[in-house]
Amino acid sequence: MRLMLLNPNTTTALTERLVASARSILPDEVTLVPVTAERGFPYISSRPEAQLAGAEVLEIVAAHLPAVDAVTIAAFGDPGLDAAREAFDLPITGMTEAAMVTALQLGQTFAFVTFTPQIAPWYRDQVTRAQLSARFAGVFSPRQGFGDITSVAEDLTDALRETCKVAARHADVLVLAGAPIAGLASVIEKDVPAVLIDPVKAAVLQAHALWRLRPKGADKGGYARPPGKASVGLSSHLSGWLQRETTRD
Amino acid sequence: MRLMLLNPNTTTALTERLVASARSILPDEVTLVPVTAERGFPYISSRPEAQLAGAEVLEIVAAHLPAVDAVTIAAFGDPGLDAAREAFDLPITGMTEAAMVTALQLGQTFAFVTFTPQIAPWYRDQVTRAQLSARFAGVFSPRQGFGDITSVAEDLTDALRETCKVAARHADVLVLAGAPIAGLASVIEKDVPAVLIDPVKAAVLQAHALWRLRPKGADKGGYARPPGKASVGLSSHLSGWLQRETTRD
Amino acid sequence: MRLMLLNPNTTTALTERLVASARSILPDEVTLVPVTAERGFPYISSRPEAQLAGAEVLEIVAAHLPAVDAVTIAAFGDPGLDAAREAFDLPITGMTEAAMVTALQLGQTFAFVTFTPQIAPWYRDQVTRAQLSARFAGVFSPRQGFGDITSVAEDLTDALRETCKVAARHADVLVLAGAPIAGLASVIEKDVPAVLIDPVKAAVLQAHALWRLRPKGADKGGYARPPGKASVGLSSHLSGWLQRETTRD
Amino acid sequence: MRLMLLNPNTTTALTERLVASARSILPDEVTLVPVTAERGFPYISSRPEAQLAGAEVLEIVAAHLPAVDAVTIAAFGDPGLDAAREAFDLPITGMTEAAMVTALQLGQTFAFVTFTPQIAPWYRDQVTRAQLSARFAGVFSPRQGFGDITSVAEDLTDALRETCKVAARHADVLVLAGAPIAGLASVIEKDVPAVLIDPVKAAVLQAHALWRLRPKGADKGGYARPPGKASVGLSSHLSGWLQRETTRD
Amino acid sequence: MRLMLLNPNTTTALTERLVASARSILPDEVTLVPVTAERGFPYISSRPEAQLAGAEVLEIVAAHLPAVDAVTIAAFGDPGLDAAREAFDLPITGMTEAAMVTALQLGQTFAFVTFTPQIAPWYRDQVTRAQLSARFAGVFSPRQGFGDITSVAEDLTDALRETCKVAARHADVLVLAGAPIAGLASVIEKDVPAVLIDPVKAAVLQAHALWRLRPKGADKGGYARPPGKASVGLSSHLSGWLQRETTRD
Amino acid sequence: MRLMLLNPNTTTALTERLVASARSILPDEVTLVPVTAERGFPYISSRPEAQLAGAEVLEIVAAHLPAVDAVTIAAFGDPGLDAAREAFDLPITGMTEAAMVTALQLGQTFAFVTFTPQIAPWYRDQVTRAQLSARFAGVFSPRQGFGDITSVAEDLTDALRETCKVAARHADVLVLAGAPIAGLASVIEKDVPAVLIDPVKAAVLQAHALWRLRPKGADKGGYARPPGKASVGLSSHLSGWLQRETTRD
Repeated sequence: MRLMLLNPNTTTALTERLVASARSILPDEVTLVPVTAERGFPYISSRPEAQLAGAEVLEIVAAHLPAVDAVTIAAFGDPGLDAAREAFDLPITGMTEAAMVTALQLGQTFAFVTFTPQIAPWYRDQVTRAQLSARFAGVFSPRQGFGDITSVAEDLTDALRETCKVAARHADVLVLAGAPIAGLASVIEKDVPAVLIDPVKAAVLQAHALWRLRPKGADKGGYARPPGKASVGLSSHLSGWLQRETTRD
Repeated sequence: MRLMLLNPNTTTALTERLVASARSILPDEVTLVPVTAERGFPYISSRPEAQLAGAEVLEIVAAHLPAVDAVTIAAFGDPGLDAAREAFDLPITGMTEAAMVTALQLGQTFAFVTFTPQIAPWYRDQVTRAQLSARFAGVFSPRQGFGDITSVAEDLTDALRETCKVAARHADVLVLAGAPIAGLASVIEKDVPAVLIDPVKAAVLQAHALWRLRPKGADKGGYARPPGKASVGLSSHLSGWLQRETTRD
Repeated sequence: MRLMLLNPNTTTALTERLVASARSILPDEVTLVPVTAERGFPYISSRPEAQLAGAEVLEIVAAHLPAVDAVTIAAFGDPGLDAAREAFDLPITGMTEAAMVTALQLGQTFAFVTFTPQIAPWYRDQVTRAQLSARFAGVFSPRQGFGDITSVAEDLTDALRETCKVAARHADVLVLAGAPIAGLASVIEKDVPAVLIDPVKAAVLQAHALWRLRPKGADKGGYARPPGKASVGLSSHLSGWLQRETTRD
Repeated sequence: MRLMLLNPNTTTALTERLVASARSILPDEVTLVPVTAERGFPYISSRPEAQLAGAEVLEIVAAHLPAVDAVTIAAFGDPGLDAAREAFDLPITGMTEAAMVTALQLGQTFAFVTFTPQIAPWYRDQVTRAQLSARFAGVFSPRQGFGDITSVAEDLTDALRETCKVAARHADVLVLAGAPIAGLASVIEKDVPAVLIDPVKAAVLQAHALWRLRPKGADKGGYARPPGKASVGLSSHLSGWLQRETTRD
Repeated sequence: MRLMLLNPNTTTALTERLVASARSILPDEVTLVPVTAERGFPYISSRPEAQLAGAEVLEIVAAHLPAVDAVTIAAFGDPGLDAAREAFDLPITGMTEAAMVTALQLGQTFAFVTFTPQIAPWYRDQVTRAQLSARFAGVFSPRQGFGDITSVAEDLTDALRETCKVAARHADVLVLAGAPIAGLASVIEKDVPAVLIDPVKAAVLQAHALWRLRPKGADKGGYARPPGKASVGLSSHLSGWLQRETTRD
Repeated sequence: MRLMLLNPNTTTALTERLVASARSILPDEVTLVPVTAERGFPYISSRPEAQLAGAEVLEIVAAHLPAVDAVTIAAFGDPGLDAAREAFDLPITGMTEAAMVTALQLGQTFAFVTFTPQIAPWYRDQVTRAQLSARFAGVFSPRQGFGDITSVAEDLTDALRETCKVAARHADVLVLAGAPIAGLASVIEKDVPAVLIDPVKAAVLQAHALWRLRPKGADKGGYARPPGKASVGLSSHLSGWLQRETTRD
């Protein structure tokens, strides 16, 4: 299967980090197709940035159809996830949602550990969206600032390890949230008395599972594709796709 | 005060309908500034359309700063509402959210009545986002289809009146959801045993109230503006605004 | 419009404080009609006091009909709010509820900051009543006691500012709860990294908005007036009003 | 033990009905002390009536102290329950709350069956107050009207039996809600495929259990008595009680 | 009435402790029938132990039918409670559930205080099962370890008193959770500013109340007995009981 | 990887049906190890049966360690799932939980469709346990009875198809609940306007994903293994496993 690892950030070094983490646990039958956004922000960390990145996610998926079998949107916060699922006809997973559904099977409560408090409101929105607040213990982050987004995982390893130890007093499962710290879970898990989840791993494994389960895609129910509609200002790939005739029950 | 009535749909006839309804109840001190989107869809009715329209909302607000004092996003479903609040420094309201907070003061439970079931999943997402499910009784709509989006309120008056009567058995307050049926509440309210809310009216009144309460805007807490950041592919208005230096606690 | 500012406490100095805060932000078209309870307690701070004050609220509103267009019940805790809405045929708002629906539009979470922990259980009940617990971060108060109820805002300014700073770590929006600290928000807001709400301001603005939206009052749904009924022991104003024939669906 | 059965309605025939039902299941050690309100309404069926009746409940309890060991407020809807618990120093139960906590032990879900839809909003408020909505299946009532409040149980036996059969499709346990239908459960339980609860029975049994468990009363925590406070306009019994010095943590 | 006090632990010293606490508050009409499990664990403190103990609970009840009128499962965590209610035709209560429904009537919020953090996940599951999380403030326990399970209450008296003082800042009512600390509430209640509940007392009083209310047992609704079914590997008492013909609606 | 498909029912024909469905979608790297319970019931359909079956699940897993890498408990209702996760050191999934976490990624709401209403209370408990009620639309089943448990899927195909069509009006995703109807989803999915999930497929795919993600098992957090403890009456496999020394944080 061809699985698009869609990085909505414009930083290719982050894409490489995500790919390395994902590849380490995928079955051989999955071929990763990494794509990095060409428009948007080096690193998404707020709702306005996510609103714009989510629009770009739709453009990117439309441009690559039908060359992939499934998509993982590889930014924690899942920009464009619901929109893409409703628009397209193949399995699509997000890092936050996939980490949460994995966590539900590994403990009663989960928390997010991330590298900056500034990003927390957007991340919390995803828990609300999924209506999983009853099992959520909050967002934890170090107080110190960070420098280069591509080396946060290395620069803040100690601070994040200590933050995890604090978070472990409040939750069974910790999700290491944010593309820049993909792969960190393996480094610190022996020191933390909680289950750690690397969300990009969870997201590609869930995409694989959905593809195995149901290759025809999510084309019914609340994600059924809307009727075709004309538009102004989109790329020809996306406007063409959205304009074609479909039906929703 | 200058209140932008931002219609994210590209149909100016809908803007006119919204303006007429809003003007009928606003105090004299409010000057409406109607703006219609130039990119996007004639009428937004799905999550992918809302994702794209929400991005356009950010562009439109950035293009009009600082000529307005407050903004009402005038499409039910509130595309771009959270993103715009976090990005900009003035009061911003949405039709769904404003109708809901008004309904909370007029009954224990509220429902949405709209003109097509196809739009319901997107509308329901707004109740989840606001965590108001405990007071929500569902979305109700006629089964029959509709033709011209600009005359839905007139074409389906009888069907919507009957739908309201059914919905009134399940909720204290009914929100007539969707820009195309702005103004309909006044026509049918005498026939329906429930409180009816015209959401564009609620939205402009809440914008007025927020402006009166707190003219400095929502610049702290969870909507505090993110740090300035460079971007690729946005208009100069929006990229310039998002790139300037700000601080978030 | 004539808006009754109904202070259910018997202390006129509190009424004056509430009026000053409310007048500072109301549009010119609103004429405040201040009324102070003649029976009850100097300052309501418990459920039994609120039970009795709520009964008095019904008496006071009945005594002033039809000379006012809307009512704001100006004690945090909203004594008699649901009862008055069901009994009478005009817009009625409460300080707690209005502050909460305003807070919903200014952040994801809100907290109450008040001047004594003794009052917290009654205040918390209002969050439960409105089913808004999912967005509530708790009640915060200084540990030190207070003296004269009419100068709490001045006597405890520093303590309340510090309490707000603590609360700001837990909520986006802080409601300065309690009539005795009306007006304090303006004094300390520059020092606190959260949105501050003065609830009497929110309550009169919501009353104005409801009056603009729907001058016929909340006479349908869950607040529809009950059938007329005879009573023993009430004033003639209130018993007469409650005895007249009405219908509820 | 002396257990006050406090009927906040002014109709003594209802008190007699309640007493008969309660006596049929109480242990010998419990002596019922029936009291009927002298001010208020023949039958409470709305929030304004409950607000006033709740104030009268406080007056009645204060007038009978210390001649009773516990109190059951014998109107479904529990007027004045929280206020009385905070004011007084002995076990107090309510019909709605006691029926609900009993139902929690007899099935996963419960519903209320009552004789008129007009009373439903007030009854539903009690489920919200107790935060038991997750186990509540709604209020069910016959459509037909009723005549004399003292013979509703007999006049509507068939209609209520049929309503129970419908409600049994939605809930495991049915609470026969309202003082006028006390005792009906025994008449119809063999015909209804659900557990039936007669709430006055549940309320006196819970009062007995609380008295057995903890005779010193609920004098700590959220029902701790407030500091003594002067008042205007209350009876000498109640004002005297509320004014005496106590402390709350 | 004959009330079986079923201790699913195999330690008879715990049974004696539970009986002593229960007898101190029961009416004379209740005759306790203490039974101690012969298979299982000296003290249950995890989910696998509770899974096995719950199976043994079914065997024990089946072996004693029809010699008892009601059953209290006397291990905090309520092993086998739902299973036993569905299987048998008499009132059955559990220590956790009974303590919780009692707490609902004595404050807004409750917490569990227990003697080891290791047991907390299993105890928390019972709050989720009952859907009472909205009123739950968490599990509190001392950090120090414990020795002999039969003298925990005495060995840790001081530590548990201090833990209660901390928990009292978070909850109105504290449940002293765990059979080994039955009776401790009476020892420390004067030092703790919260209502304390000894759960075995609550459980036997609720069993008495259910027996008074409804001697025919919970044989309808969600606990209706399932159709008779053959089995392999159970005792003849239990397999015989489960195989007999019954009907469920 | 060796994945135990543990059927807690004693009917081997059901095991064969489950294996057939699971094998149809598993990657080649997964070797199924089917095991059928030797004690218990031909088909589990109530809480007491599930209590006993869950105890047997612990015995079976203990007897097969360390010959398998992961376990799927293959009865809808997940008997023994939490207990087994806390007891053992390898990934364990359940049909209900796995179907639910899969459904969360394919729509906003899910429902269960099963072949008899008698089984519904036990199934509903699993939604409560997972705290997913906000996304659950209920249990749907045909009214007609069923005969041989091994041919329910074939005997009731038409009735279940029609039930699915009704359920599709209430939920986006339908879970075909119950081992006896494993495989049915593929037969009827083209006729039903909703996403259909075959839970055994979801359960084995989630087991595969957890094994890929985290082969060391769920040995921290809320499922951390309890301290070793002696027992009476268990098999030597299970008692030996539970008695060995481990530590929990």
